[in-house]
Amino acid sequence: MRNLNQDTITQAVLARFAGTPDPRLKEIMTCLVQHLHAFAREVKLTEAEWLQGIQFLTATGHKCDTQRQEFILLSDTLGLSMLTVAMNNEKPAGCTEATVFGPFFLEDAPHYEQGADVANGARGEPCVVRGTVKGLDGKPVADAVINVWQADADGNYDVQYAELAHPQARGILRSGPDGGFHFKTIRAEAYPIPSDGPVGDMLKATANHPWRPAHLHFMIEAPGYERLITQVFRDGDPYLDSDAVFGVRQSLVADWVELPDGSYSLDYDFVLNPVR
Amino acid sequence: MRNLNQDTITQAVLARFAGTPDPRLKEIMTCLVQHLHAFAREVKLTEAEWLQGIQFLTATGHKCDTQRQEFILLSDTLGLSMLTVAMNNEKPAGCTEATVFGPFFLEDAPHYEQGADVANGARGEPCVVRGTVKGLDGKPVADAVINVWQADADGNYDVQYAELAHPQARGILRSGPDGGFHFKTIRAEAYPIPSDGPVGDMLKATANHPWRPAHLHFMIEAPGYERLITQVFRDGDPYLDSDAVFGVRQSLVADWVELPDGSYSLDYDFVLNPVR
Repeated sequence: MRNLNQDTITQAVLARFAGTPDPRLKEIMTCLVQHLHAFAREVKLTEAEWLQGIQFLTATGHKCDTQRQEFILLSDTLGLSMLTVAMNNEKPAGCTEATVFGPFFLEDAPHYEQGADVANGARGEPCVVRGTVKGLDGKPVADAVINVWQADADGNYDVQYAELAHPQARGILRSGPDGGFHFKTIRAEAYPIPSDGPVGDMLKATANHPWRPAHLHFMIEAPGYERLITQVFRDGDPYLDSDAVFGVRQSLVADWVELPDGSYSLDYDFVLNPVR
Repeated sequence: MRNLNQDTITQAVLARFAGTPDPRLKEIMTCLVQHLHAFAREVKLTEAEWLQGIQFLTATGHKCDTQRQEFILLSDTLGLSMLTVAMNNEKPAGCTEATVFGPFFLEDAPHYEQGADVANGARGEPCVVRGTVKGLDGKPVADAVINVWQADADGNYDVQYAELAHPQARGILRSGPDGGFHFKTIRAEAYPIPSDGPVGDMLKATANHPWRPAHLHFMIEAPGYERLITQVFRDGDPYLDSDAVFGVRQSLVADWVELPDGSYSLDYDFVLNPVR
């Protein structure tokens, strides 16, 4: 394996990975090397561009910490996240569609009773959210674990505030015996994804905006059903057709209704797919 | 741009990057998105695997600091570095071949006079290195700036020792009026690339060793000539045919001759390509 040139090196690298014991890892490494090399070959990557790429990835890694996941932002803005979600969440008609997870979920959100205010002090227009969790057969799903999380009126998630002592605008509820749930929170607002890092630089350099249409994140889990990770989008938002992370599905767009007292309400029902 | 599925999302993402003002960046982003999506689609990437990928890249970024460049190691071990070098360094026959730069170069190495000991205390078998720098026309290249760097007998570069007060086994010399240079150092030894990080995990999981054959790095610059980044490899090394970074070229393999006093000598001449 000496004297490898641009015509022979790819086969040599593939041969190197041919002994990978795990067949799935072997498949992934083989495909990765082929596409990585084909990319470099097709664009005739220069050494200066290669170094820029190394520096971009390094800066992206350095931007990641317990509060910030810049590689997920990168995957989101390159459409890889939505592609992966789409490939892995083909559900029968009638099921609630899945969309991107995003980088702002927290494992250990606070638990709330029905009707509680998950905003927990987050700034925003008051809003009541109501819905039911059903199976594809229409039967209510009781005791489903419902994670909700969202940004505040300034477009920030709680984890983006370094000084915050307790979680805000996120929580875990359980559906009632009839599959129903309801909680207080704040109205979802459009916001830009964090753009003070390498992904923001990439968006600027490619003349793209960092905005996401207003949405409320849901993760719903119940025994016997596939986990649903999705978002409900606010109708009328100017960014519904140019979401920075390609996540909008028409079936997930809903109406935030303004009430006479100036507060808002959202009604949305979720339909889970039985485990296959 | 709503309801993107696995069949339509790639075109939507490409459309997003179609307005990139810089034509070269547009070309690179377009090709990158196509190959990234094709990779995910061909292997039918699962959401768990996607997350493993995010975590791998994040860990790779976190391993990078001023002393360690894990993304270069990743590029090296996937053959991307050597592919990029090969594509960008096609030279006329007779010129010294280029090979990978590696992650251990330092911008501000100490300057040495001819004959000085660049080892500067690094552990290893004493060795004298001699050579000349010539142009492709055979004329000596005087006053060429010659950067040399290498690992010590324990397989470590100086930058891998946190406690080291001064550079070792690296330095900058200038060729004399006849293009000649000579310096003292230590004999090059085979060594494993740093394997206590994500790249080491990847090599283990793919049943690959992290070893590089013994080599001495050179970067040679002179006005009117292309910069040469290369390595001279030690003949007889057991890793010449399985270099972890795919960098060996037969024309760069040379004899480290053992002298009667137990020290070594290496003679190697460099031929630079005129700037095109």
